[in-house]
Amino acid sequence: MALIDQLIEALRVLPGVGPKSAQRMAYHVLERERAGGQRLADVLAQAVEQIRHCVRCRDFSETETCAICASGSRDAHLLCAVESPADRLAIEQATGYRGLYFILQGRLSPLDGIGPRELGLDQLDARLGEGEVQEMIIATNPTVEGEATAHYLAQLARRHGVRPSRLAHGVPLGGELEYVDRGTLSHAFGTRSEML
Amino acid sequence: MALIDQLIEALRVLPGVGPKSAQRMAYHVLERERAGGQRLADVLAQAVEQIRHCVRCRDFSETETCAICASGSRDAHLLCAVESPADRLAIEQATGYRGLYFILQGRLSPLDGIGPRELGLDQLDARLGEGEVQEMIIATNPTVEGEATAHYLAQLARRHGVRPSRLAHGVPLGGELEYVDRGTLSHAFGTRSEML
Repeated sequence: MALIDQLIEALRVLPGVGPKSAQRMAYHVLERERAGGQRLADVLAQAVEQIRHCVRCRDFSETETCAICASGSRDAHLLCAVESPADRLAIEQATGYRGLYFILQGRLSPLDGIGPRELGLDQLDARLGEGEVQEMIIATNPTVEGEATAHYLAQLARRHGVRPSRLAHGVPLGGELEYVDRGTLSHAFGTRSEML
Repeated sequence: MALIDQLIEALRVLPGVGPKSAQRMAYHVLERERAGGQRLADVLAQAVEQIRHCVRCRDFSETETCAICASGSRDAHLLCAVESPADRLAIEQATGYRGLYFILQGRLSPLDGIGPRELGLDQLDARLGEGEVQEMIIATNPTVEGEATAHYLAQLARRHGVRPSRLAHGVPLGGELEYVDRGTLSHAFGTRSEML
């Protein structure tokens, strides 16, 4: 197989990239971005080889402990549990949260063979047992599996005398009521709060 | 900058990849496709370093002469001029064309400093002068610049006693060859008409 066809094939490992866009990417890089392509090849090889998981929070990290866990300026009384590194990043970018994180790298899904062990919950159990964490913010996704995971985590927290909390559910800011799904609207209606 | 942020940054060299999809790609590869990521890094580095241009047709090639130009079974009396390697590929996949190609790697665009020399037209001139080519199928895009380029190429062909032809109507005006569906492209290729 010609090198360019191998490249088009290899690009399809990226999510959302089909044969047509892989082809467009290959030609674009070869026509106009050789230096950028070389850089991408180098960084990708390095990342795949060197990026492992932080021993504290299970986030991606090239060092044994990630920058957030190693930072002395974060509030160790707060621990936020999320499903994925992308979720952690979203919270980090959107909120002023200054506590620590625990990345599950998934959600409970017994049918797919994903149980407490796969999510590192033995490790989380030990972590909560250290006694430093006072509140665990459970920020799993509001899906069926995410809710089941949240429920499980809340029990784990209570067992260690840690206060579990959950992100507020409701109508998204800037959204239009008309387009909000029924479940969300019903929930937001039921948990309405008094205006002061 | 952390390695993962470098990776996200480097992925943006790919066309159509913004910050959000670059992030999704990086996480996806690290979570689920390490082997594929390693392979992509290898092939990309190799491609960027080794793929050059065919000395006959200017298409991408890792050898001095590309497979099509080197093939003894193509009809050397027919020469098809296209703007890009992607266009050549589209024609090759959609039609039964058995002649040779000349890839302009662009179109005449004086305002961008792209003149006959940048499109290798001196080389094409010499090629037509060899006397083997009898018909030149001009398959530039049906855009203003593509049409101007086609006109220029037709004159060049006539100067050498070569019959210029153009793809038939059926290719939507304002579209790009690369994205035309196969049936339309094949039909247009088959009903090409002589330029008068």
